[in-house]
Amino acid sequence: MPLTLSAKYLEGFIAPHELDRVTTQVNAAHKLMHYAKLGTEPGPGSDFLGWVDLPEKYDREEFERVKLAAKKISANSDVVIVIGIGGSYLGARAAIEFVRSPFYNNLKKDTPDIYFSGNNISADYINELISICEGRDVSLIVISKSGTTTEPALAFRIFRDLLTKKYGADGLKDRIYCVTDKARGTLKQLADAEGYESFVIPDDVGGRFSVLTPVGLLPIAIAGIDIDAMMQGAIDAREKYAECDLENNDAYRYAALRNCLYRRGKSIEMLVAYDAAFTQMAEWFKQLFGESEGKDGKGIFPASAIFSTDLHSMGQFIQDGSRNLFETVINIERPNQDLYIESDAENADGLNFLSNQNLSIVNRKAMEGTILAHTAGGVPNIILTLPEKSAYEFGWMVYFFETAVAISGYMSGVNPFDQPGVESYKKNMFALLGKPGYEDLRAELEAKI
Amino acid sequence: MPLTLSAKYLEGFIAPHELDRVTTQVNAAHKLMHYAKLGTEPGPGSDFLGWVDLPEKYDREEFERVKLAAKKISANSDVVIVIGIGGSYLGARAAIEFVRSPFYNNLKKDTPDIYFSGNNISADYINELISICEGRDVSLIVISKSGTTTEPALAFRIFRDLLTKKYGADGLKDRIYCVTDKARGTLKQLADAEGYESFVIPDDVGGRFSVLTPVGLLPIAIAGIDIDAMMQGAIDAREKYAECDLENNDAYRYAALRNCLYRRGKSIEMLVAYDAAFTQMAEWFKQLFGESEGKDGKGIFPASAIFSTDLHSMGQFIQDGSRNLFETVINIERPNQDLYIESDAENADGLNFLSNQNLSIVNRKAMEGTILAHTAGGVPNIILTLPEKSAYEFGWMVYFFETAVAISGYMSGVNPFDQPGVESYKKNMFALLGKPGYEDLRAELEAKI
Repeated sequence: MPLTLSAKYLEGFIAPHELDRVTTQVNAAHKLMHYAKLGTEPGPGSDFLGWVDLPEKYDREEFERVKLAAKKISANSDVVIVIGIGGSYLGARAAIEFVRSPFYNNLKKDTPDIYFSGNNISADYINELISICEGRDVSLIVISKSGTTTEPALAFRIFRDLLTKKYGADGLKDRIYCVTDKARGTLKQLADAEGYESFVIPDDVGGRFSVLTPVGLLPIAIAGIDIDAMMQGAIDAREKYAECDLENNDAYRYAALRNCLYRRGKSIEMLVAYDAAFTQMAEWFKQLFGESEGKDGKGIFPASAIFSTDLHSMGQFIQDGSRNLFETVINIERPNQDLYIESDAENADGLNFLSNQNLSIVNRKAMEGTILAHTAGGVPNIILTLPEKSAYEFGWMVYFFETAVAISGYMSGVNPFDQPGVESYKKNMFALLGKPGYEDLRAELEAKI
Repeated sequence: MPLTLSAKYLEGFIAPHELDRVTTQVNAAHKLMHYAKLGTEPGPGSDFLGWVDLPEKYDREEFERVKLAAKKISANSDVVIVIGIGGSYLGARAAIEFVRSPFYNNLKKDTPDIYFSGNNISADYINELISICEGRDVSLIVISKSGTTTEPALAFRIFRDLLTKKYGADGLKDRIYCVTDKARGTLKQLADAEGYESFVIPDDVGGRFSVLTPVGLLPIAIAGIDIDAMMQGAIDAREKYAECDLENNDAYRYAALRNCLYRRGKSIEMLVAYDAAFTQMAEWFKQLFGESEGKDGKGIFPASAIFSTDLHSMGQFIQDGSRNLFETVINIERPNQDLYIESDAENADGLNFLSNQNLSIVNRKAMEGTILAHTAGGVPNIILTLPEKSAYEFGWMVYFFETAVAISGYMSGVNPFDQPGVESYKKNMFALLGKPGYEDLRAELEAKI
């Protein structure tokens, strides 16, 4: 049984007829998302709907090449540096932490350590990664559609230099892999000229929807994760979420319910899980929803927490602070390996009432107790249940959220597939750094600092 | 020059007279915070004002004992497991990542690896830590006022068993250290009975204000951080923020400004830094502010981001989404070690306009460009400038935020020092787990699941 949604804990927060009232909007959103198949009119951002049929149409030959490259990299590398930002960073990291572990780099394993760079401009961060590479065999994966995005391009310069010093110019083509445009751009040109193996970022799949393309697949495969199972999860989810049916399509129901909550003044969504392995998945979620819906002065603010950890930091606010939020709880039914709590002869800590059972039962009861406490405190809870932290479930969950955000965004009256606001800081940064062509803006901005 | 606040980028968001109008409220809050010294009436939570004079009054003898214990632990351990939750977890982790590195456990160093446990109920998390301990010398630090808080008490059972198997019952007293109540409670009794060295959590310092007590000091010292310098930062900050003077007291000005923004409808504060080393400091901040102010149906929702990383995920929302947020930007002036950007003969990536300068300059321009873009987009920005990521600055910053939240909480009309809402989930969890005495609640809750 894959991911399922329960709206049980929305009772008292959303009236039964409210879902009925938004059915026509859901249906309209469905038509925009499936306009090609349905022969209806395309909606805004329709050039970026490639993710919808990706699980069916992805390039099988390239997929096998990804697996071969992963095998080769795993065999000749102690450390892999994955260079990318935004959608070229979060999905792979989310998968590795969710399916393998948030301690992936600290555990004994037969796959390389994986570090992410090119997602910031911090000197200390890069210097420390360089020191981690010392005395170890390193490969690079560079992920960038154009090859000119500032953060990854800078990191690529630095780490390519490091590899050149280590392996010589001739050694680079065994250690540098590019995920980039199929034909154009600086990075593609470089890859072709230097003989670096390259993989394609499809034109019709936006960054935050790209984890099931080589953008995510290559790093994920290097971590030893079964990408066939992952794609199967997405394939099965696509089939499950194909019809516009609020009764049976949980992705659509999730989109509709969060819209109803938003219209009732719940302006913050906290995505909550009871497992630290979900931490980066929540960051991926925040990009997917924040970037798709946060525009034109609207959007639910996406936040996240890991419980019970954050019940001892954000728990007070959620229980009793401003009543402008709702929670979406990720209920992972089984840990990878459970832990039996032994009874203690002395019972000095008084915890024997917890003993002689698995720790996952205690975690489950903490979750159930928290859901009841928070709903009693006025916080609506949507529950998404996942059986386990497998590659299959990851692929399914990705497709679930992608579908939901498309429907939700269209229901909100925005283009869910653009991100015009991201350009503003870049333009200013270029001007302040003296990039040719930005002279007028530079003068204007410097007067304001 | 230590931490300073700039309100320059609030122009157009807060009128100059608004600060004047809240001066009487700031003054009233000041009297509650310093009631003992001023001979005024105490406010709510006045039993928990011990942090105010802590930098002056802390136990010097115990402080030296902390340093000795840290030295001993560092000498005989490869791995230290720090067991604690909430305020007994976040402060130490924040300091280690801020002053040393977010990659602390992955870097070569002459201090032990430090892992945190007892902050969740996840079987996989604990199993993975156990596997990390295999074949390595381990010490435990257990931090709990009572010794019966579920998460740390469970973790302590598990890791004490592990150490008993490794070192025998006789070996434990060289490897277990307790930070707990000075006289009462299960953990204190156990420490005394077994001869574990113990350190005191003062009665008048709440969990989220405890990082400058042994709660934070012991793990921080083990990481090789200069805790004398850290306390000096707090001592100097205490002197700087002693007077009720909105002109010169930045902690009070910060409290007043964020209150003004909140009253204008800015219900989310994003704490932003341009360095991943600040990630956990932001989690500490979220507890401090969320738990102190999020009550009685009010409070600013605390969120955080690391830029430029999250400009490629949350940036779109901040630039252009719902206009209900403001940013507090942590401007760290210097990295520990800069990185010079070489020019590239080919300049295929077009980034030569960035070259022949230090990377920190690029990061600074990204920050300046972002501040101008976000304020132009309707997001007020408060700027807090820190010269560097030192122990001294950490101590100063802790005292700055603690002072600010006390003033801000009192201005908001709440008790900034309690957290009644945290009990709700615990009570439910106990009932659902069948703890004796909770039978009626159990039946009631189970009917709702």
